[in-house]
Amino acid sequence: MANTDSVGLRVFSLNCWGIHYLSKHCPQRYAMIGDLLCKEQHDIVLLQEVWSEKDFLSLKQKLASTHPHSHYFKSGVIGSGLAIYTKHRIHDTFLYRYSLNGYPYMAHHGDWFGGKAVGLAILNIGSLTANIYVTHLHAEYCRDKDSYLPHRVVQAWELQQFIRHTSAGADLVILGGDLNMHPQDLGNRLLRTSTGLRDSYSETAKFDGCENGMTLIADNPFISQKELGPFEKGIRIDYILFKDSSKAEIYCDFMSTTKGSVPDHPFPYSDHEALTAELRLETRTRTEAENDRKVMSQDAAAGKLAELVDIVTEARTEVKVGLHCAERMRYTATRTGVMGLALLFLELAIAAVPWLALGAEQPFPRTSFYMLAALCFAILVTTFLLYIFYTMELKSLQGAEDQMRLAVGSLQERLRGFPLAQPHSSQRRPPEGLEPSAFDPEE
Amino acid sequence: MANTDSVGLRVFSLNCWGIHYLSKHCPQRYAMIGDLLCKEQHDIVLLQEVWSEKDFLSLKQKLASTHPHSHYFKSGVIGSGLAIYTKHRIHDTFLYRYSLNGYPYMAHHGDWFGGKAVGLAILNIGSLTANIYVTHLHAEYCRDKDSYLPHRVVQAWELQQFIRHTSAGADLVILGGDLNMHPQDLGNRLLRTSTGLRDSYSETAKFDGCENGMTLIADNPFISQKELGPFEKGIRIDYILFKDSSKAEIYCDFMSTTKGSVPDHPFPYSDHEALTAELRLETRTRTEAENDRKVMSQDAAAGKLAELVDIVTEARTEVKVGLHCAERMRYTATRTGVMGLALLFLELAIAAVPWLALGAEQPFPRTSFYMLAALCFAILVTTFLLYIFYTMELKSLQGAEDQMRLAVGSLQERLRGFPLAQPHSSQRRPPEGLEPSAFDPEE
Repeated sequence: MANTDSVGLRVFSLNCWGIHYLSKHCPQRYAMIGDLLCKEQHDIVLLQEVWSEKDFLSLKQKLASTHPHSHYFKSGVIGSGLAIYTKHRIHDTFLYRYSLNGYPYMAHHGDWFGGKAVGLAILNIGSLTANIYVTHLHAEYCRDKDSYLPHRVVQAWELQQFIRHTSAGADLVILGGDLNMHPQDLGNRLLRTSTGLRDSYSETAKFDGCENGMTLIADNPFISQKELGPFEKGIRIDYILFKDSSKAEIYCDFMSTTKGSVPDHPFPYSDHEALTAELRLETRTRTEAENDRKVMSQDAAAGKLAELVDIVTEARTEVKVGLHCAERMRYTATRTGVMGLALLFLELAIAAVPWLALGAEQPFPRTSFYMLAALCFAILVTTFLLYIFYTMELKSLQGAEDQMRLAVGSLQERLRGFPLAQPHSSQRRPPEGLEPSAFDPEE
Repeated sequence: MANTDSVGLRVFSLNCWGIHYLSKHCPQRYAMIGDLLCKEQHDIVLLQEVWSEKDFLSLKQKLASTHPHSHYFKSGVIGSGLAIYTKHRIHDTFLYRYSLNGYPYMAHHGDWFGGKAVGLAILNIGSLTANIYVTHLHAEYCRDKDSYLPHRVVQAWELQQFIRHTSAGADLVILGGDLNMHPQDLGNRLLRTSTGLRDSYSETAKFDGCENGMTLIADNPFISQKELGPFEKGIRIDYILFKDSSKAEIYCDFMSTTKGSVPDHPFPYSDHEALTAELRLETRTRTEAENDRKVMSQDAAAGKLAELVDIVTEARTEVKVGLHCAERMRYTATRTGVMGLALLFLELAIAAVPWLALGAEQPFPRTSFYMLAALCFAILVTTFLLYIFYTMELKSLQGAEDQMRLAVGSLQERLRGFPLAQPHSSQRRPPEGLEPSAFDPEE
């Protein structure tokens, strides 16, 4: 294969833990992050949990000479926390807000207020169109009894949909961010298998960083052992993923993570470790690309399809669990609301009957009367709001489940037709753009 | 040009006005719509305002033999109301919920509860990949003083973003739906100019229907003159738009609308008129496409870019108006909340002072005390919820404005470089996929 050009691309990703007054040493850590970025001059910097726009702007100012182009993605009440700084001009941006993202009344978890989303920035790197995605998924607070799992699975489903559908025109795709999923978690498998994204940690030629590429480690002073649960040394939940195309091949030459402490500083950059991937893009001319076109064997393609069917089916099961749970919650809200209404009527009846019958001053103690009425109203308002919220949650879960069912049907149809697919393989879509993922139709 | 193949494609779009108990003759009209679709056997049926899933399912059952493939897009509390029925297998679907969609407390308008969105279904029509979009934008209740205009402009912005970013791999794009915008409204111009979508009413060779292609007409018995305002005869707000690619050219041979009454029936299908576009797809081989490649003159391309810059700038101004309004609303909510809190403290102080000083029974009348306290709490809760809502609205408006600013900058940069663009034009992205829109980078 004759490569026409080779370009290096250094990508950085960090969850900044930027909650003012709650995150420890926030201003000092931002100063450290700014210094690091100025010094390292990565091509693309993807940040998460930049909850304050002020912090984005002060970093922007600091990085004005090294990273002249930037974008801050806004979403939710205080989010989305996603930011990108780059050496390459950003031509276009787009934001997809996940339809499910926790519960507003779980204010101590705060995810709902963050308006979790996936941001897309389109850059030109040399002659290549690069789709750069940055995202942050719902946190996992308790792995054993993870009530947010259906939400995170739906987020992973929407993330892969967004990437698949928006990247057809791209020559390379890079996704960086805090997925809040272990490497073999359902959502992660779903994302990788359906999009064809490759993990730079698994692909790298050389690695320097925490054991197993972990990004939330026990050695980080901001991390308590409780957060890590049974994973004593740490977990890997932050990623830089990439996908090449017929116009460019991507290799990961080197990957590194920070290791929980920073030389000459009393504390690390964040509670998460920062990732750096040194990628090499080898661009190819169209003729070379066509000559080099990788043809997947029929068995391998069928195997990949079958794997995807299994994963989507597993995801569907998880969404169904979420549906069942949301239905139960809505039912509880409805029942409580009805009880509140009944109590209100009962109170009014008790108060009204003696007054009507005797025409005298009502015997119901006034204080209790008003307190009880206020309580009933509070119950009614709260349960009404909860009913609305759970109905929206149900719609989103049902919507995701419908889409998954349709996808499984479509994949199975293709799988059934596999032995017959060969005669038509020459009609296959020409390989402009990205390498096909398992989802792309063959016809 | 040698056409290798010609395929007819009949597309239908209708806003069904399917609000049970509120819309007149809802079940009868659904029966009529079902009969029409069974008889006409369009290739693709795009429906809006199918608010009840039961109606979707009963239509699905009725159309099982003529339109075996269908999808219902779920969103919001009762929405999204979007449905698609088709003869061609649906391979994949995706839904984008607009970030802004009215206000929940404007319950009589109901748009917020509808969870307005744009649905995408991907079909294979012969050897072509077709991206079919169906959408419904926020209604316009008062054209002179349209407080929802910034929301609708942001919806149009997100719609064009969604279509542009998801259609790179498509050979043809069709968008049908109720845009709630007149043909020359800002959002409509933004949508058409940025995506390159063409209006089947303007493009059709033959037309049979209401004057000027109107879809909300005075002759429809469900429409009151008040709704049409100064437009006595009616307005055109429903559309079928399309875009071809280098692999297929699309022609609109015939277009029709219903005319406010249905022969042998006492009332029409809906308060909107139904649209039918008879499209003809002429597929081309890759070699033909390359030979035929349309090259836009530099002047025309620069003119198109300049027009888009103007339109996006106009949209940005409208979003800024929305921002100003949302900021004022949030300020009002905050001030009211603070006043509620002050009132509560005042009440507690008045009640506590004599009691502390005299040690006697408090002189504050008990009924008034509880009523006032309940009022204060109600104010606090309501203003808190409003504050959260307006903050989210602000974030979305700011996000859209940021994206527009970036887009204008990027477009202007390209516009500045125009006289120098010619020498590089041979490096331009090969015309696989769709014809380039004004937004697509040239490099």
